[in-house]
Amino acid sequence: MIDLRSDTITKPTPAMREAMAKAEVGDDVFGDDPTVNALEAYVAELLGKEEAVYMPSGTMTNQVALRVHTEPGDEVILESEAHIYYYEGGAPAALSGVMCRLIKGNEGIFSATDVERVLRPDNYHFPKTKLVCLENTHNRGGGRIFPLSEIEAIARICQERNLKLHLDGARLWNACAATSISEADYAKPFDTVSICFSKGLGAPVGSALVGSQELMKRARRFCKMFGGGMRQAGIIAAGALYALKHHRERLLEDHLNAKILAKGLQQIDGIAIDPEDVQTNIVIFQTKAIPAQTLAQKLQEKGVALLAIGSHSLRAVTNLMVTQEQIQAVPELVEAAMRS
Amino acid sequence: MIDLRSDTITKPTPAMREAMAKAEVGDDVFGDDPTVNALEAYVAELLGKEEAVYMPSGTMTNQVALRVHTEPGDEVILESEAHIYYYEGGAPAALSGVMCRLIKGNEGIFSATDVERVLRPDNYHFPKTKLVCLENTHNRGGGRIFPLSEIEAIARICQERNLKLHLDGARLWNACAATSISEADYAKPFDTVSICFSKGLGAPVGSALVGSQELMKRARRFCKMFGGGMRQAGIIAAGALYALKHHRERLLEDHLNAKILAKGLQQIDGIAIDPEDVQTNIVIFQTKAIPAQTLAQKLQEKGVALLAIGSHSLRAVTNLMVTQEQIQAVPELVEAAMRS
Amino acid sequence: MIDLRSDTITKPTPAMREAMAKAEVGDDVFGDDPTVNALEAYVAELLGKEEAVYMPSGTMTNQVALRVHTEPGDEVILESEAHIYYYEGGAPAALSGVMCRLIKGNEGIFSATDVERVLRPDNYHFPKTKLVCLENTHNRGGGRIFPLSEIEAIARICQERNLKLHLDGARLWNACAATSISEADYAKPFDTVSICFSKGLGAPVGSALVGSQELMKRARRFCKMFGGGMRQAGIIAAGALYALKHHRERLLEDHLNAKILAKGLQQIDGIAIDPEDVQTNIVIFQTKAIPAQTLAQKLQEKGVALLAIGSHSLRAVTNLMVTQEQIQAVPELVEAAMRS
Amino acid sequence: MIDLRSDTITKPTPAMREAMAKAEVGDDVFGDDPTVNALEAYVAELLGKEEAVYMPSGTMTNQVALRVHTEPGDEVILESEAHIYYYEGGAPAALSGVMCRLIKGNEGIFSATDVERVLRPDNYHFPKTKLVCLENTHNRGGGRIFPLSEIEAIARICQERNLKLHLDGARLWNACAATSISEADYAKPFDTVSICFSKGLGAPVGSALVGSQELMKRARRFCKMFGGGMRQAGIIAAGALYALKHHRERLLEDHLNAKILAKGLQQIDGIAIDPEDVQTNIVIFQTKAIPAQTLAQKLQEKGVALLAIGSHSLRAVTNLMVTQEQIQAVPELVEAAMRS
Repeated sequence: MIDLRSDTITKPTPAMREAMAKAEVGDDVFGDDPTVNALEAYVAELLGKEEAVYMPSGTMTNQVALRVHTEPGDEVILESEAHIYYYEGGAPAALSGVMCRLIKGNEGIFSATDVERVLRPDNYHFPKTKLVCLENTHNRGGGRIFPLSEIEAIARICQERNLKLHLDGARLWNACAATSISEADYAKPFDTVSICFSKGLGAPVGSALVGSQELMKRARRFCKMFGGGMRQAGIIAAGALYALKHHRERLLEDHLNAKILAKGLQQIDGIAIDPEDVQTNIVIFQTKAIPAQTLAQKLQEKGVALLAIGSHSLRAVTNLMVTQEQIQAVPELVEAAMRS
Repeated sequence: MIDLRSDTITKPTPAMREAMAKAEVGDDVFGDDPTVNALEAYVAELLGKEEAVYMPSGTMTNQVALRVHTEPGDEVILESEAHIYYYEGGAPAALSGVMCRLIKGNEGIFSATDVERVLRPDNYHFPKTKLVCLENTHNRGGGRIFPLSEIEAIARICQERNLKLHLDGARLWNACAATSISEADYAKPFDTVSICFSKGLGAPVGSALVGSQELMKRARRFCKMFGGGMRQAGIIAAGALYALKHHRERLLEDHLNAKILAKGLQQIDGIAIDPEDVQTNIVIFQTKAIPAQTLAQKLQEKGVALLAIGSHSLRAVTNLMVTQEQIQAVPELVEAAMRS
Repeated sequence: MIDLRSDTITKPTPAMREAMAKAEVGDDVFGDDPTVNALEAYVAELLGKEEAVYMPSGTMTNQVALRVHTEPGDEVILESEAHIYYYEGGAPAALSGVMCRLIKGNEGIFSATDVERVLRPDNYHFPKTKLVCLENTHNRGGGRIFPLSEIEAIARICQERNLKLHLDGARLWNACAATSISEADYAKPFDTVSICFSKGLGAPVGSALVGSQELMKRARRFCKMFGGGMRQAGIIAAGALYALKHHRERLLEDHLNAKILAKGLQQIDGIAIDPEDVQTNIVIFQTKAIPAQTLAQKLQEKGVALLAIGSHSLRAVTNLMVTQEQIQAVPELVEAAMRS
Repeated sequence: MIDLRSDTITKPTPAMREAMAKAEVGDDVFGDDPTVNALEAYVAELLGKEEAVYMPSGTMTNQVALRVHTEPGDEVILESEAHIYYYEGGAPAALSGVMCRLIKGNEGIFSATDVERVLRPDNYHFPKTKLVCLENTHNRGGGRIFPLSEIEAIARICQERNLKLHLDGARLWNACAATSISEADYAKPFDTVSICFSKGLGAPVGSALVGSQELMKRARRFCKMFGGGMRQAGIIAAGALYALKHHRERLLEDHLNAKILAKGLQQIDGIAIDPEDVQTNIVIFQTKAIPAQTLAQKLQEKGVALLAIGSHSLRAVTNLMVTQEQIQAVPELVEAAMRS
């Protein structure tokens, strides 16, 4: 099976398994796990923040961030298809009691002017705006990279208006690999950044939230309350640490594969895609005639797994488990599936 | 002062004051207030539902309705400028933990197809859609009337998809007066309807939620929890009952005044408005050059109060406190204010 | 009917009705109601705080206070039968997300040492203690008065430990009448105080929360969000203002009646009560043999209404609607009911 | 270091590490992880329920259970020092909006009569009671076993009153080992049971919730929303599965060690403990003169780690990492620490 459903499906490599098998561990709820501590220190330094907290999922790091910055009745500004709004089970309202104020972006990217336009006067009829969230790269935006200059312009507005700024950086590694901008440079304008080890990096489990010591003290409290307190988590933290040290550079291979795939798909009658839109490892394309669900099923039978993400829209994500050779075979299989 | 800020500013008439002064009362928390009981019975019958619950505000009747139909993590479908989403202080997330899924309507009105387009598959990444809310007439839509046929089409989808349907009918009376459709006919497709006595009807305090006995039992519970349990509420309920019996028909005067105002404003250079858009008692117009806030201040000095509701957008609401003569004077005052 | 179920059942007097009938009003959501403004100013001064906010119920003033001082996951220290915990429909958890840490008091009264004993270390396994609430007089404690010296001792601990202190003063007027301590002196150690107009004072509707300007700005926001934004609320505020000015001193009559009632009940075989326990207007007594519910029903038939509040426990509350002559008749009726 | 702080501090054994190193994995968010699936099937069968859900912590399984059974404003009946109430960061109120109604048990155990006594009439002043939670064995009750006959009596009341029944079975394995009653027999009266792999069993990470398919569908949804969706969780699930298959019987060694420790401590002047109270692996003892915190620090210096859990109360938990020989050395070290 050529599995392009997501970069979350990656399995640990033998070397990563060995790192996990040998990991030194302790009870992380007591702060005693040396591998978790090493991972948190490494991540904090890489992102240029005071402290990092390891948690079981990216949903948790994002939702803890929302909880850290807000109280119920507050409002969070987000892109209209942001993962936090779209794919996290209604957690912003359920866990933090916050309203989502949506900006319709361009493939997930929006401007400082867009933010200014949705700000509200201070009046008790309105929720209180407290936080702006960006997503870089943007999942439903097809892996689009948020330009650093625009991030900085948004950060200036946040400072003027006393708003906090959070980055859902589940795929920040891809933005860094593609632009050669460092993680720390991307993270600088943000109060908190959420990053994932289990997507392109290929570690089995976990994410981290980074920020100031004061915010991370609050984050540890809410992580524990949400059920994120794991005991000998060093086992999986070892996989994350390995991935961080060894798998960031190879993301360029995934990006190259995504380009190859996009160009191949562009040749197929009945498929709409502009390879210029593919900036990282996510390839979104439209089927003009055939329903996305139907095409996905036919491809499944031919050994290619990808996701229908709209009525005529599909997503393929290149990843550690898929070689360039396999990618090169995909367009032909898609064409065959469409013809059948 | 010609006060056109809202139809909520209306003061009780002498006859209404007399009804309140003479009201029989009891402790409504024990169910002992005969005037509240009479009002609830009258409203339930008028709307053709089993039971009504009197509450201190329209925000409370709407938010209790959301709470009655949902649990945290559910999703509610709303027009993008619905009062429930826009003006109720973030209560959907804060009090019910629900996400708002927004449809951009046409002056507040949307179609059954729009609803179908935003429905989600049953998947634990998504909030669970439970409720659709309409607003009739639509406040930020300029008092626009929701067509009954479209309401019925939306209700059919809700039935198919096991969704509940709530009406924010704060100004339902205006829709009924304008179309001659009865309150009960408008209410029929809905599970719950919220109506207000303190807007066009001119009563001082209160709203009611109507629906089945089972739902209203839940509603009384959440009303009490939210702090809506009033004691000898018969005093204000008497004003609401009087308004209901005597002030519904006169809303046509407000509608006529709104038309007169709109036609007058249309003549003014630098004001954009189409009188055809004015269906009830709300007149929204745009100022091309002058900021809305500036014009509102200048008009205030000239004895006309209205609200800036956007950077170049103002709202005037005709109401019980403003005569046709006064309305006829307004366009000239607006013109003078713009020239000054 | 001699109605002793509660002091909430009082109906407005003719003079109070006249004050309401003549009340000047405006739209209080815009801050335009002169009678509400006058009431809030009067209450703030009486309690010696910067600002007061008028709301529809005592449940709302208490729950807004909890919301003002806390965030979800915090803990509030309360007496085990405090009205806020016992009778407000689960609102502390539902509206504020706070845990209740209960102290078993002596008829509702507890000590500074009791507070110290339940404080927790700063550890992320625990909720974060933020607020202590007292109730004066204490409803389920039989109208017991909280000694000012003990209040001050608790306030000192709150200051040391950075905790806020709230008073549920629904019946603070009774404590003041009984002790001659002023409302301001009782209110001084507290950050916020909730007071009611619709209990002993006899006004039909409403309560107020008092505190600093900063806290009251937050309180107005949550009051609006909870649905407490009323329009021409001056109608009922006029009743509250009248009650405040004319009915505070007469509470001593209720207290005298309560003593008379308690002494009468003490003479009856099968009734347990110590008149020394009756400090204000609430008389709680035990029936040894007969179930409380049965006795309450029999008394209802004989023209006396009171509440069973436990399996063998009943509550009678003297109030504005019941004369001394009527009270003197009650013990005989109770005896007859028990014999029948 | 003889680490008796908790049975959560256990590190994976070499065999368990090997099981984890070789675990087959997949993306569990897509349901693709064979090891997680095997673990869930094994647990469901062992507990005699339709389905199990693997989650990162016992706090999450408990809090998801509360969320599954309730809505905000409901009430949960719990022992006054239950882990769910005491140690889970205020999550019942913060995540589920539920009130805790506490029963003061005898070392964590209470009776069906106790439950009946705290039930409330159906009245909108009260929260709505929905759920009763037991804890077996009871952590702060010193590892006390809940008698099955009492559980069944409580379950009958729950059925009569339409209440749900949840078991916090973090240490259910210890109860089973001590009584020879099977997990399925203990689980039978409950709607949901939470069990932990990371306590006495010695697995590094994780817990499971079991119950009917319908409830577990809801549980998966809330688990995902709370941030418990892990990807290649098979790595740690393999440890849990290994522990389940190989470490349940050896808990009797921990129990024997706890008895030995208790009898040793009983000999020491200034220590209060009754070895009869020690039923499983938790030893709680009182220091008469010396503060618990002081004794814990002195013991730390002597190579024994345990926890102060009250001003004069300490807890030692025997576990996989501590041999009988080490245990036998502890009393002497305690005596020396007290004398120093």
